[in-house]
Amino acid sequence: MGLTRARIAVDAMGGDFAPEEIVAGAIKASAELDLDVLLVGDKQQIDSLVEKYNSKETASVEVIHAEDVITMKEEPLTGIRRKPKASINVAMDLVKGKKADAVVSAGHSGAAMASALLRLGRLKGIERPAIGAVLPTIIPNKSVIVLDVGANVDCKPKYLEQFALMGTIYSKYVLGNEEPQVGLLNIGEESSKGNELALATHKLLADNSQIPFLGNAEGRDVLSGEFDVIVCDGFVGNIVLKFAEAIGEVMLQIMKEELPKGWRGKVGTVLLKPNLRDIKRRIDRAEHGGALLFGVAGICIISHGSSRQGSMFNAIRSAKEAIDNDVLEKIKSYNNQRLESENNHTEAASASSK
Amino acid sequence: MGLTRARIAVDAMGGDFAPEEIVAGAIKASAELDLDVLLVGDKQQIDSLVEKYNSKETASVEVIHAEDVITMKEEPLTGIRRKPKASINVAMDLVKGKKADAVVSAGHSGAAMASALLRLGRLKGIERPAIGAVLPTIIPNKSVIVLDVGANVDCKPKYLEQFALMGTIYSKYVLGNEEPQVGLLNIGEESSKGNELALATHKLLADNSQIPFLGNAEGRDVLSGEFDVIVCDGFVGNIVLKFAEAIGEVMLQIMKEELPKGWRGKVGTVLLKPNLRDIKRRIDRAEHGGALLFGVAGICIISHGSSRQGSMFNAIRSAKEAIDNDVLEKIKSYNNQRLESENNHTEAASASSK
Repeated sequence: MGLTRARIAVDAMGGDFAPEEIVAGAIKASAELDLDVLLVGDKQQIDSLVEKYNSKETASVEVIHAEDVITMKEEPLTGIRRKPKASINVAMDLVKGKKADAVVSAGHSGAAMASALLRLGRLKGIERPAIGAVLPTIIPNKSVIVLDVGANVDCKPKYLEQFALMGTIYSKYVLGNEEPQVGLLNIGEESSKGNELALATHKLLADNSQIPFLGNAEGRDVLSGEFDVIVCDGFVGNIVLKFAEAIGEVMLQIMKEELPKGWRGKVGTVLLKPNLRDIKRRIDRAEHGGALLFGVAGICIISHGSSRQGSMFNAIRSAKEAIDNDVLEKIKSYNNQRLESENNHTEAASASSK
Repeated sequence: MGLTRARIAVDAMGGDFAPEEIVAGAIKASAELDLDVLLVGDKQQIDSLVEKYNSKETASVEVIHAEDVITMKEEPLTGIRRKPKASINVAMDLVKGKKADAVVSAGHSGAAMASALLRLGRLKGIERPAIGAVLPTIIPNKSVIVLDVGANVDCKPKYLEQFALMGTIYSKYVLGNEEPQVGLLNIGEESSKGNELALATHKLLADNSQIPFLGNAEGRDVLSGEFDVIVCDGFVGNIVLKFAEAIGEVMLQIMKEELPKGWRGKVGTVLLKPNLRDIKRRIDRAEHGGALLFGVAGICIISHGSSRQGSMFNAIRSAKEAIDNDVLEKIKSYNNQRLESENNHTEAASASSK
């Protein structure tokens, strides 16, 4: 504790319910998770919200003024460049200047990524950052991390290989899977199945001794719990993620329509109220926790645009878990091993060709 | 009726529960939907099943012997070529020889597609066939057709344009949507979003006056009911379809675990039994009906490998609906219009360049 307490910079202005829900969630996280929060954004607005929500003053919050905001309609790279004092940029600068250990934002995810890339830079050996989303599986208390869910719409096989490596580390050190099983999202189990990208990636993953590759994962396997890490390009991943989020609502809607039909239905539904609430909670969990931006030189959690205080709380907890488990250093060290072994291979190859 | 009664060739040997469940479902469909069924496969086995299930002899079934079967493990094209007397080939030949109006198979879907391509050929103007799956939406009694869900893993924009055209016709004439809304599966609403394929396809769809293009559909929009037709490449489509099928089971599993908890839960669950059955039915519906193979010169319905008699019944009904609504002729006529207008454009262009 003390000097090693996690310090998390929160973009207080990002998200559909910013700043109020963001500030409320951040204060709760600081108080309950024993960490410092730096709330970045319009000081006047945030100060009054801190006063409202931190009545007991158990949270450790500091407000850092940022005069600008990137709106959802802005083109991310342009916005980030034109507005150096936007809240997401100021938050990112805190990490760059080692005044914070992580950034959490529920704002424009493209802008958060652009800001992280420009301000923190990429990790050595990672060519493209990836957004990793943690989803619940059918096995209670078991999650799967899917990456990329939207950072890269067109991918090369080696990007997916790098995603697999980063996902493995996250699964092992943050989600606690000692032997994570990695899957490649594909349309069949056989190695001969798939589009050009999947076919080439399959070979790379199978040949990489750092990656515990189990094989192809079909759409039906995403939530089966058989895989701990699933890699795909950001186009497919984003569609699956958004489909998954929506289908929870579809299911709740169907239940809402069907359960109260008839007198038995009405009585039964009243009796089942607490259980239905638990079901809703399990289904909703998919949207929680925020997604980690992998491959940049800092910890950056992207939370859902519709985040309210509960989601913000969970996103900050995800940031803390990544900090506490030293994910960044572990990714760096694995990457260095990989790069060294690749160099050795290249040297050996050029030596043998002499 | 009489001479215009639909005649449907059923691959009795295809599927995990063939021939028994297939034969049982086909007999039920013939009796209840007023159509002729040609059961193709091992005559001896099928004869005894017909005796077992057609006890009242209300169904009109004929058994056509086929001495071979394509197994799930065979490479489709090789299997289809090596085994001309495989049940799927014999069934396809019945359509080719105008002895049947459609083929239904729950066997190897790749083999069914290869057989259809080799025996029936492609429709003029369609470069690649597509598999179209009809999914329920959140709006009661409203479906959406998604294509391609697995025939083509790597697509060109013009393939997706052709899929959109065929899906529009199906939606209009079979699903009864007078003004179908077409969506392109993508990762954002804006036309600037997407991978290379999506960007190029967006432009083609927007420029095609035959296609009622509403815009991009995100993962969350697939089941929203806002779109009647959604086009995508077969890689993404297959993953989304299999994910959708599995998530129904996940939801039922969560309900099974959570609902009976506590005494209120136990009593409530007993009371709700009929309603829960209705929910299961609504969720299960996603797997029913079979998928239509679009773009080949004949009607071919691909049913789920795990089809039991209920799914087979629904697949045969889908075939009948396609026949009754003359889908094939309508696709041909739209295509001819399109090809003519393209020719006119080309001629006009070459005339103006002279």
